[in-house]
Amino acid sequence: MEASLWRAHAARREVTLERLPKSWQRLGGRGLIARTLLDEVPPTCDPLGPFNKLIWAPGLLVGHGLSSCDRISVGGKSPLTNGVKESNAGGTTGLQLARLGIRALILEGAPPEEWAVLHLSKRGGRFESAADLLGLGVYEAAERLRSRFGPKAAIALIGPGGEMGLASAGIQNLDKDGEPSRINARGGLGALMGAKRLKALVIDAEGAEPPPLADEPAFRAAQKKYTQALLAHPQTTTYAEYGTAAMVMMCDGFGGLPTRGFSSGTFEQAEKISGEALRELLLARGGEAETTHACMAGCVIRCSNCFAGPSGERVVSPIEYETIGLVGSNLGIGDLDAIARINWELNDLGLDSIEIGAALGVAAQAGWMEFGDAQSAMRLIDEIRRGTPLGRVIAQGAAVAGRVFGIRRVPVVKGQAISAYDPRAIKGTGATYATSPQGADHTAGLTIRAKINHLDPQGQTEVSLKSQINMAGYDTLGACIFSGFGFARAPVTTRELLQCRYGWDPGESPLQDLGRETLRLERAFNTAAGFGTADDRLPEWMTTEPLPPHDAVFDVPSEALDGIFRDLGV
Amino acid sequence: MEASLWRAHAARREVTLERLPKSWQRLGGRGLIARTLLDEVPPTCDPLGPFNKLIWAPGLLVGHGLSSCDRISVGGKSPLTNGVKESNAGGTTGLQLARLGIRALILEGAPPEEWAVLHLSKRGGRFESAADLLGLGVYEAAERLRSRFGPKAAIALIGPGGEMGLASAGIQNLDKDGEPSRINARGGLGALMGAKRLKALVIDAEGAEPPPLADEPAFRAAQKKYTQALLAHPQTTTYAEYGTAAMVMMCDGFGGLPTRGFSSGTFEQAEKISGEALRELLLARGGEAETTHACMAGCVIRCSNCFAGPSGERVVSPIEYETIGLVGSNLGIGDLDAIARINWELNDLGLDSIEIGAALGVAAQAGWMEFGDAQSAMRLIDEIRRGTPLGRVIAQGAAVAGRVFGIRRVPVVKGQAISAYDPRAIKGTGATYATSPQGADHTAGLTIRAKINHLDPQGQTEVSLKSQINMAGYDTLGACIFSGFGFARAPVTTRELLQCRYGWDPGESPLQDLGRETLRLERAFNTAAGFGTADDRLPEWMTTEPLPPHDAVFDVPSEALDGIFRDLGV
Repeated sequence: MEASLWRAHAARREVTLERLPKSWQRLGGRGLIARTLLDEVPPTCDPLGPFNKLIWAPGLLVGHGLSSCDRISVGGKSPLTNGVKESNAGGTTGLQLARLGIRALILEGAPPEEWAVLHLSKRGGRFESAADLLGLGVYEAAERLRSRFGPKAAIALIGPGGEMGLASAGIQNLDKDGEPSRINARGGLGALMGAKRLKALVIDAEGAEPPPLADEPAFRAAQKKYTQALLAHPQTTTYAEYGTAAMVMMCDGFGGLPTRGFSSGTFEQAEKISGEALRELLLARGGEAETTHACMAGCVIRCSNCFAGPSGERVVSPIEYETIGLVGSNLGIGDLDAIARINWELNDLGLDSIEIGAALGVAAQAGWMEFGDAQSAMRLIDEIRRGTPLGRVIAQGAAVAGRVFGIRRVPVVKGQAISAYDPRAIKGTGATYATSPQGADHTAGLTIRAKINHLDPQGQTEVSLKSQINMAGYDTLGACIFSGFGFARAPVTTRELLQCRYGWDPGESPLQDLGRETLRLERAFNTAAGFGTADDRLPEWMTTEPLPPHDAVFDVPSEALDGIFRDLGV
Repeated sequence: MEASLWRAHAARREVTLERLPKSWQRLGGRGLIARTLLDEVPPTCDPLGPFNKLIWAPGLLVGHGLSSCDRISVGGKSPLTNGVKESNAGGTTGLQLARLGIRALILEGAPPEEWAVLHLSKRGGRFESAADLLGLGVYEAAERLRSRFGPKAAIALIGPGGEMGLASAGIQNLDKDGEPSRINARGGLGALMGAKRLKALVIDAEGAEPPPLADEPAFRAAQKKYTQALLAHPQTTTYAEYGTAAMVMMCDGFGGLPTRGFSSGTFEQAEKISGEALRELLLARGGEAETTHACMAGCVIRCSNCFAGPSGERVVSPIEYETIGLVGSNLGIGDLDAIARINWELNDLGLDSIEIGAALGVAAQAGWMEFGDAQSAMRLIDEIRRGTPLGRVIAQGAAVAGRVFGIRRVPVVKGQAISAYDPRAIKGTGATYATSPQGADHTAGLTIRAKINHLDPQGQTEVSLKSQINMAGYDTLGACIFSGFGFARAPVTTRELLQCRYGWDPGESPLQDLGRETLRLERAFNTAAGFGTADDRLPEWMTTEPLPPHDAVFDVPSEALDGIFRDLGV
């Protein structure tokens, strides 16, 4: 617990080390970010102003190579939603921060004169010049940083989008193979990093040890139990084979696949962009294509992939379901090669493909591109790269695009785009979109696997709440959503792992307890930031416009939405 | 009270007549709009969607040619602020509606297929085609409408801005001479009218009588007393001679004249754009220039003017102080001819010069124009006319422009631009900007004439509250702010006029009672729409960035702002 809070002062360009306050010690990741925001950031502050802070916090279980449990949470007050924000990603950032003993890194203060790179190592932190990196795309900037700091360093960096202050900008992390493909995508945290004029965070854990274990043998035993449970789960195989893209046909089957600006829940070309088609294509192409790939060392699921072009040359890694849903079917594009090219461009700009896909769908409604025409989508993305007014409008996100273009059919909650599950057909996820303190976000509480009629307005908030609590718990542990395949089958391991790591007993249901605590903290921050029940709603048009093929509207009662967190006392 | 509520169904294209509900009968103008919104409009609705309504309501004293008391209030849920909105204007619309016995005209429902003109007369209301008017600027459209409906009809219409759904769009009314120069400018009500696909409202009161008086001789006696008090006030002469432009040197003297994007409170060219310079120029130019002009029949103040070019040809009428402050000093432009040309363009587009001036100041900070260069401002206004992305961004208002361009120094509250009184130097008006349910708006409670040190953070909310109550009262009566020169000196006349008009006794202090009631209703609507104390704040940068020459920041305590309406119970 020595000096596990590192504080980087942007303007003074210095890093100080502190002990973690007592009330922060049993939190990590998303929960610790919420706690930090409540304790240190004025809730009504300008998210791009001097009083906001950008926080990196590995989850409580990060640092030991547990399968799917080395994720890095990043957070702050969101430039997109104006509320609490945490976005987590895989890759190596979390692991390396934890190896340096860092539970939280807080970047704060007004921006310095010059853009910087922040370098952390056993010797502490220092700011260096980023002059040679400015304006560079993520891929080239990452390459240069790896040349400068060596192949072992973890790197979190922003692209031109973050530099331009675009509210769809994320923060990209290297995967275990050094590719900057793991993105803290949502909520505009890249713009916040840009507002502090930080181009990259580099973590060099050379010579550092994994975090100490209070009881190593017992920890290893629990780890084994957890890994075996994970491996035994049938979904582990599905995700290894098809990745998240397995969801395309499932969501299309439920009538919830966003299609042409959320105007239909099925896409006639769904099979062409399905997980099955993706796997077949990659197997056929060979070369640098990979149908299964781990983003973090030690992951046994390996749901990621590497997309390769016709001659086997690598195009982008990975292609995820939400990207397929938002820049594929949502734009009427039934072509995996086109989706892969768009995905690479957005990664290189450092932008959230969900937010941009949704915004492009709005732009298409306004006549700025044609549904189904990938070239016109690429032209708009080029407008973003050139920083034109049109490009900036789109890259400020779907809500701003709707406002500027005069389009009412905008799929957002709290200013953040709805992801690839139309809430009219998957109503529990709609309840999550509406009520999550994070704004619309499937990772805050997906319900698609719940045993419930997804079209029934009744009972959805209960299902959503359960999922929201679990996800807030996983995000606080630093665990991937898919770790749940293991933890759900061996729930006692969360308690055992925490106890053997830290030496304190987290109680019988640490996942849910941490999840509840995190949601409470987040709701408290949002309430102080000015959020209320009026913000816990889907867009009006989704309550009136029927979604084919089920002609469903979102009709979960407002009273149910307003009471969803009642048992949490918030 | 027979059928004084006219309801126009946009999609069905029909107008029905109803009795005014009992609880609405003692309200008018702004107060009646708030009541209507609370009773009929879901507070969380999409302001440009089918559930919002656009309401015209003449104030309680409208219809009798009382000096400065024939104003028309228009309102709805604001597309700019998302809250309650009332914006009032002079001209002939209020008078003619009142002559038809209309206390409230409600335009509601989804838009029709085709754009329409709504025509009201003694025979009722009917929708006609607006096909020949679409895309036309306000001046030409008004001319065509006057040809079609005759010179006596009152007209309220939108320009291309309202048709495009721009949130800075207002609604323009003919003045007593038929010029479409009196604008319900603020809050984007033109966009709301456009969302109902109504290009113009035409009121033909031919053959109608003034509203009945319960006691005509006593009404005339009270009118005489009021008019005499008004004429005796020294400000009546000042405003007749210099118009609102008299405020330029006063505000510059207080160090509160917005200059170059609110970066200074004094402008080295202030004298060149002052009321004195304006009067001198217009006297020298002669021809169609007028230094004093009445916007409503019967007004004895005549604070308006007609600006003429070098050879005496009319350019625009009127030039008001807030336009001079926002498109003049705020853009570093010290040239009345340039300001007049910009003013004409904005009028013709049907846009609020305050909102656009503030947005152009943001655009200048982002490098899209040069401070002091009127040509570059005109080029941006041309972008608006052409509907380019850049133009649309600016015309969606200063908040959207700041968001898209990545500029933090944006002068807005609740999404609406601060007008020509920098709140750091005129702190009482800052308290009004922060707390008014209308968003930043000097007409909601200007404090510049209060006997107080405007730089002192103490005591400002008391001064603001008093002014907010009075203004809400005037806006409910249909009285111009300058009617206060008369009503303040003969306060009993408000009670007498109301009693002699309606036959009921409004009590001892009707102005304040109506003002308090109106503010209560407006706060109730906004609370239900999701507004809270977090929204009752000036922009963060105004609390930290000192304003020359006094190096003042806005430091009225938050607790004072939060408690401002405590005595009203809201």
